[in-house]
Amino acid sequence: MHITHPNKQVSLSRNTFDAFNDWLRANSYSKVFFLVDENTHEYCLIRLLSDLPDLADYEVLEIEAGEESKCHEVLINLYHALAELGADRKSLLVNVGGGVVSDLGGFLAATFKRGIDFINFPTSLLAMVDASVGGKTGINLGVLKNEVGAFAAAKHTYINPVFLETLPKEQLRSGFAEMLKHALIADAEYVRQLSEKLPNALAISDQELERSVEIKSEIVQADFKEGGVRKKLNFGHSIGHALEALHMQMGEPILHGEAVAQGMLVELYLSHKKAGLTKESFLQVRNIICSVFGISPMGFEQKAILEMLGHDKKNEAGRFKFCLLNAIGSAEVDIDITEQEVVDALENYNTYN
Amino acid sequence: MHITHPNKQVSLSRNTFDAFNDWLRANSYSKVFFLVDENTHEYCLIRLLSDLPDLADYEVLEIEAGEESKCHEVLINLYHALAELGADRKSLLVNVGGGVVSDLGGFLAATFKRGIDFINFPTSLLAMVDASVGGKTGINLGVLKNEVGAFAAAKHTYINPVFLETLPKEQLRSGFAEMLKHALIADAEYVRQLSEKLPNALAISDQELERSVEIKSEIVQADFKEGGVRKKLNFGHSIGHALEALHMQMGEPILHGEAVAQGMLVELYLSHKKAGLTKESFLQVRNIICSVFGISPMGFEQKAILEMLGHDKKNEAGRFKFCLLNAIGSAEVDIDITEQEVVDALENYNTYN
Repeated sequence: MHITHPNKQVSLSRNTFDAFNDWLRANSYSKVFFLVDENTHEYCLIRLLSDLPDLADYEVLEIEAGEESKCHEVLINLYHALAELGADRKSLLVNVGGGVVSDLGGFLAATFKRGIDFINFPTSLLAMVDASVGGKTGINLGVLKNEVGAFAAAKHTYINPVFLETLPKEQLRSGFAEMLKHALIADAEYVRQLSEKLPNALAISDQELERSVEIKSEIVQADFKEGGVRKKLNFGHSIGHALEALHMQMGEPILHGEAVAQGMLVELYLSHKKAGLTKESFLQVRNIICSVFGISPMGFEQKAILEMLGHDKKNEAGRFKFCLLNAIGSAEVDIDITEQEVVDALENYNTYN
Repeated sequence: MHITHPNKQVSLSRNTFDAFNDWLRANSYSKVFFLVDENTHEYCLIRLLSDLPDLADYEVLEIEAGEESKCHEVLINLYHALAELGADRKSLLVNVGGGVVSDLGGFLAATFKRGIDFINFPTSLLAMVDASVGGKTGINLGVLKNEVGAFAAAKHTYINPVFLETLPKEQLRSGFAEMLKHALIADAEYVRQLSEKLPNALAISDQELERSVEIKSEIVQADFKEGGVRKKLNFGHSIGHALEALHMQMGEPILHGEAVAQGMLVELYLSHKKAGLTKESFLQVRNIICSVFGISPMGFEQKAILEMLGHDKKNEAGRFKFCLLNAIGSAEVDIDITEQEVVDALENYNTYN
C-alpha cells in the first residue's frame, strides 16, 4: 500500500528498508539522527541499520521508554543534543519507536531551527495505525496530554509489520483499541470483520493494518488541522485522555489504548443517549470491547474526571464537545454534552463491574 | 497601507484599534489573552484596552522585558498559565510588545494545543518593521538565538506608529538597523532616501515604515519558509546573531539592531570581497552605518565568533552560508564563506577602531 497526498506519504510493506535507502539516496541530508528508546534501540534500530550499509554519518538519540518521556525536560535535552551534534536545517530526524517516540520526535523536528525533515518508523501497533500517521506531534504539559504540539507531517511513514513480532500482548491490545475505533467511526463492515475474529482479535493481519491506516489517512487528508471531520478520530478520547492524565497524576500510567477502550465504553453510552446509536448496536459494540479489554473499575472520582475533561482540546468556551457514534461505522462531531450527562455515563459504566 | 496574502495580514495605520475591534466582533473567540511585558503593559496595553470597550472576557499575561524572557522557562510558565486560565483552541492570543513578545508569543500560540490564533501589536520599531511581520516565531536555546521555533503567521499584524512616541532613542536605533537592511537588500533608492536624512535618521516617517514593511512582506510572501529568497533578510545576521549570542553568554545582552549593525559592517566587507560589491558602494554604506551606530570594538575573540557562527541556521553540512550584497539594493544568498574569509573580515572591522 502506498498513500500519497501533498503533506505526507505513508507506505505499508514488509520491505520498507529499501524504500528508506532510496529516500536517503534521493535526498542529500547533511546528517541523519535516529530517535529511539532503549527497547527500539535494541530490537528495531539495529535491524534497520543492518539494512542501511551506505549510511555512514548518523547519530543515535535515546530516550527512556514510556509516556513520561513526552515532557519538556526530555525535549529540551534533545534540542541541546541536536545543537551539540551539529544538526542543521538539512538534517533528518528518523523516529524509530512507538507513539511516544513519534509524538516527541515529530515535535522536536517541527521546532528545531523552525523545522527539519523527519521520518517515522512506527514499531508499535498503536504507532502504525495511529500516532505516526497524520502529523499530530506534541508533548504533555504536566499531566495534560498533548497540550503542547504542532501539526507537522512526516516526510514519510514506513510501516513494517515485521516489528509487531517483538511486541508484548498488552502493546498489541493497546493498538487494537485504535483499530477498533477506526472501524467504529467509519466502516461497519470492518467492525464485523474484527468482531468475527474474537477471541483472537490480536492476531493482526497486514490487510487489517492497511484498512486502519487507510481510514486514518483519508480523514487526515480531508482535514489536516482538525477543523471538522478529523475530530471523528477523537471517539473515546475525551474520556480516554482524562483517564490517562489522572493515571499519570497518580504516577501509575496506563497504556493509551486501555484508556481509550474505557473511554469508548463511556462514550458509547453517550452515543446511545445523545446521538441515536441504537440499543442493539450499543450492546453489540460494548460486548466487543469488553471481550478484548475486560472491564476494570475506573478508580477515580467523577469530580476528578470532570475537571480533567475541562482541559480537552475539543472544548469550546467552557462547553464539552464530544465525538459520538450515531450508528456502527458512522460518527458525528461537536456534540454538546453536559456535566450531568457525563456523570450519568460514568455511573452506567460503574454498573458493568 | 494594507497588505494581504493567504497567510497573513499586515496593516499600518494610526487607527488600528477600530480595525482590531472589528476583527474581534467578526470572530467569536472564547477568550482573549494579552501577552505584554511590564513596559508595554503600562504604556501600550492600557491605551489599547481603553479603545476596546466591548471586550469583557480577557486575561493579561506579563513577562519581564528583555531577551532573557525568550526561553523555555518563561514559555512553560505561559503554557501553564493558559491552561489554568481556561484557554481553548478558540482562544486568541494578542502580543503587545516588541520582538521578544511577538517571537515568544507567536511560538506560544503556534504550539499551545497544537495552535491557536494570534495577533501582533508591535510596539517597538524593530517589531513593526521586522519581528512581527513574516511568521518567524521562536525562543532561544541557552545562548543560541531562535534555535527553537516555528513558522506561524499571525492572523493580523496591526502596526500603529503612535507607539513609537514612547520609545527611547536606542530602541529606535535598533529598529533602524533592520530598516536600513531592508533598503540595502532590495531598494537602492530607499537607501538614498535614508542616507539623505542623516544625521536625523531616527525621525521615522510613516512612509518609511511602510516601505520597510512592504519589502519584508514581499519577500516573505515569495518564500514563507525560507527556502531561498527569504534568506536575503539575513544580511548582517550571520555575524549579528553570533555577536548577540556571545553577549548573552557574557550576561551583557545588546539590542538586536546594534548587533545587526556590527554584523552588516563585517558582512559588507565580505560583500565587497566575495559578491562583487564595489569599493565605492562598500565605503558609502559603511559611512551610513557608522554615522548612525558609531564603531565599537567587538570585544570577542575570533575563535569564539567562529564557533558561534557554526550554529547559524543557514549553514549546511558544516559550511558557512552567507547572504551578501552584490550592489546597493541587491543581495545574493547561499554564498559559501570560509573560516579564513570570516577572519579577514573581522580583522578589517578591527581596523576601523
